[in-house]
Amino acid sequence: MLYIIGLGLGDDKDITLKGLEAVKKCSKVYMEAYTSLLSFGLSPNGLSNLENLYGRSITLADREMVEEKADEILNEAKCSDVAFLVVGDPFGATTHTDIVVRAKKLGVDVKVIHNASVMNAVGVCGLQLYHYGETVSIPFFTETWRPDSFYEKIRENRKLGLHTLCLLDIRVKEPTIESLCRGKKQYEPPRFMTVNTAIEQLLEVEEARGESVYGENTICVGFARLGSEDQKVVAGSMKQLLTVDFGPPLHCLVIVGKTHPVEEEMLEFYGL
Amino acid sequence: MLYIIGLGLGDDKDITLKGLEAVKKCSKVYMEAYTSLLSFGLSPNGLSNLENLYGRSITLADREMVEEKADEILNEAKCSDVAFLVVGDPFGATTHTDIVVRAKKLGVDVKVIHNASVMNAVGVCGLQLYHYGETVSIPFFTETWRPDSFYEKIRENRKLGLHTLCLLDIRVKEPTIESLCRGKKQYEPPRFMTVNTAIEQLLEVEEARGESVYGENTICVGFARLGSEDQKVVAGSMKQLLTVDFGPPLHCLVIVGKTHPVEEEMLEFYGL
Repeated sequence: MLYIIGLGLGDDKDITLKGLEAVKKCSKVYMEAYTSLLSFGLSPNGLSNLENLYGRSITLADREMVEEKADEILNEAKCSDVAFLVVGDPFGATTHTDIVVRAKKLGVDVKVIHNASVMNAVGVCGLQLYHYGETVSIPFFTETWRPDSFYEKIRENRKLGLHTLCLLDIRVKEPTIESLCRGKKQYEPPRFMTVNTAIEQLLEVEEARGESVYGENTICVGFARLGSEDQKVVAGSMKQLLTVDFGPPLHCLVIVGKTHPVEEEMLEFYGL
Repeated sequence: MLYIIGLGLGDDKDITLKGLEAVKKCSKVYMEAYTSLLSFGLSPNGLSNLENLYGRSITLADREMVEEKADEILNEAKCSDVAFLVVGDPFGATTHTDIVVRAKKLGVDVKVIHNASVMNAVGVCGLQLYHYGETVSIPFFTETWRPDSFYEKIRENRKLGLHTLCLLDIRVKEPTIESLCRGKKQYEPPRFMTVNTAIEQLLEVEEARGESVYGENTICVGFARLGSEDQKVVAGSMKQLLTVDFGPPLHCLVIVGKTHPVEEEMLEFYGL
């Protein structure tokens, strides 16, 4: 059996009782490393805390490993219980859907244990989850690559009065350009996008496209470390949020659509 | 301190370690009753299981009680730790936003402990959460009341190729017409909408509006008891799903938009 277990958002105590029971009976425990180290603020020390809690040693599985060794992991899951731990909910990212598809094709039983994810925890700011449109991703712009397909999606959401959740880029294990040339793998330090950078990029795209989809007076909510003890939630105009230091990762951003009175009251509590 | 604690979707073991720790230190524990009895499949017996697990007695708080006694609950939370337990995630419903607003106005500290909700657990069917549009609610039609405002929302989602999550009506503690006339409160037995009824109503509205937003060949995914051990997930056309018995509550429905190959592969596994 392959258990895909959501760990929730904050720290090691956000696992469910059901999730913990499942981990404890697994002979092998993998943990996706792409985003988890950053979002759980894990040092190698933090990982051993998790190992103590679970009573199991954990193998970190980065993107390469999951892609290359998926069949190996799935073969283990054929004859024993294997856990694959995922920060948030198991279906926040496409990679996890992919591993389920591969498991089902190999005839491996899969059991999913859900948990909170950014997709529902943003509800804490008071904006109703029912009134969100399509979610967008904001990638880091480079000198030569400045994709702005999020602009149309935000436009359509705003036409309908809907809120937009913006997921902000995370770069881990990006090979350095130097290492690519030399054919030897060396990695850039991990980078995560701040609310401030996201807003700068959004405003740059608005400037270039000029359709007045949003502007520096558009009300947004910035989030940092959502679901953790020290989460930070601030509502204000884009211009105002540019001046806020949200601190350590992970960050995300909501562009506010049409609001109802209860939503407005809640936003006031998070105002600058 | 007022702790608003998400219990997740399936049963008593879906609470997080953090949530359980918080409940155990509260002097008073309330549990919202609107949907929880149905979705946890709770009998009075089930409630005592929860009480044993938490080591606390639980006061069921129905909608009337939350509205009438909110100030009383919040006053208790001023000088002691009070837990308010919510099935799913705390911000699935407007009522909970409302109690947070009231708490903040009274200067009561609020701490939210997140969990899985329908809004993210539907991800289990393989349709990417990023590609959902606005969520709609399908209310029970009566002889004289057949509201169809969901139709425009589904239309806008489908124009953009987005999936639509349809939340289906739940009626608990509805006063009987007889009791309203007599001024004495008597309640109808609880009712929850099945996937089948939802599809019948959707097709009736399409028939009346005639804009070909969807039809009996539109692919959907029906869910029952999402997140429970015995959850049922079936993908198929509206016509096909009409013939499926999804069993006990709660049910919900997704109208599928434009799909990507990985999404299609997952839907195949849930096909009839």
